[in-house]
Amino acid sequence: MADTPDPRLTAQLDFLTQADRLKSVLRQTTLCDGSRRENSGEHSWHLALYAMTLGEHAPEGVQIDRVIRMLLLHDLVEIDAGDVPIYTQSAENADAIAAAEARAADRIFGLLPAPQAREFRALWDEFEAAQTPDAQFAKALDRFQPPIQNIASAGQSWLDQGVTYDMVDSRVGRVVRRSVPALWDHISGTVKALLAR
Amino acid sequence: MADTPDPRLTAQLDFLTQADRLKSVLRQTTLCDGSRRENSGEHSWHLALYAMTLGEHAPEGVQIDRVIRMLLLHDLVEIDAGDVPIYTQSAENADAIAAAEARAADRIFGLLPAPQAREFRALWDEFEAAQTPDAQFAKALDRFQPPIQNIASAGQSWLDQGVTYDMVDSRVGRVVRRSVPALWDHISGTVKALLAR
Repeated sequence: MADTPDPRLTAQLDFLTQADRLKSVLRQTTLCDGSRRENSGEHSWHLALYAMTLGEHAPEGVQIDRVIRMLLLHDLVEIDAGDVPIYTQSAENADAIAAAEARAADRIFGLLPAPQAREFRALWDEFEAAQTPDAQFAKALDRFQPPIQNIASAGQSWLDQGVTYDMVDSRVGRVVRRSVPALWDHISGTVKALLAR
Repeated sequence: MADTPDPRLTAQLDFLTQADRLKSVLRQTTLCDGSRRENSGEHSWHLALYAMTLGEHAPEGVQIDRVIRMLLLHDLVEIDAGDVPIYTQSAENADAIAAAEARAADRIFGLLPAPQAREFRALWDEFEAAQTPDAQFAKALDRFQPPIQNIASAGQSWLDQGVTYDMVDSRVGRVVRRSVPALWDHISGTVKALLAR
């Protein structure tokens, strides 16, 4: 370290080093080749690349660079709270999940210098609330990417979990359609055919 | 698929699905806990988060959102060309590596609709050339993150590769200092102590 280490930089590097743990949080979805489950770190990269690539399909006024920043942060709470597969989420466990994620957000964003901690937390809160066009587009991509992985791997993780088309339509299709109907229209027939077999 | 699938969207999803392979390209650097080698997908996420978190330390005029986009793309060529650890790069193999990466960029960015392919390729070319302040900051982060992982894991991958402090200083320190001397100053003493043992 330098003679007079910058305390802001020290705090930021602590945050970035703890963020590394997101690479060890496993999701239900596999890689496209089905070789292993995807982790939440590489998933976050892929979603940011989705936003960068599919930005032209977003509703007018959506700020893609804000969406990218939101997606880079959106799963960090899983370091403490774990990943909860959407098909296991219900009205019964929603409050407990939200409370665990809020505690995680307090701790993890709280590692940063105060003004930056508030800025990152506000972006995450906006994503979670899913009320703004930016957050709704970010959420749509977060739901849209797993079906693309599932289509590539012949539905492996859906079949493992006993997922039906109606489940995908209500948990995934609904959220994608709210922001970008064209994305869901593009794949819904393929998803239906895959899950009808 | 919809009755009249959008050919641009079809091309973009093909690009995003092929990009998934970056999650299977392994780097020399391990995770902070030393449990396994890092892949280039999760590395790209981490670097984008570095840019978002450390933006205040960048030289004046650097556009962090451009840097983030550059970092999301910067390793995609490894899908075809593989990752070449910096300590194995030399004047002798530089041309062959550059040629393989340029061929990979032609193919991978060429999957996208033409105007977008040019836009993404231009960002990658800018990163590779490392002449603009944005690209130099992106390169600095790409070199700065592995030492942070190495410090966390007690230098495991450096010791495995027989890396000395002078090697880190010339391959890493030089590139970090060119953009943000304060970042290198912050860790150089720690790196030296770790590699002197």
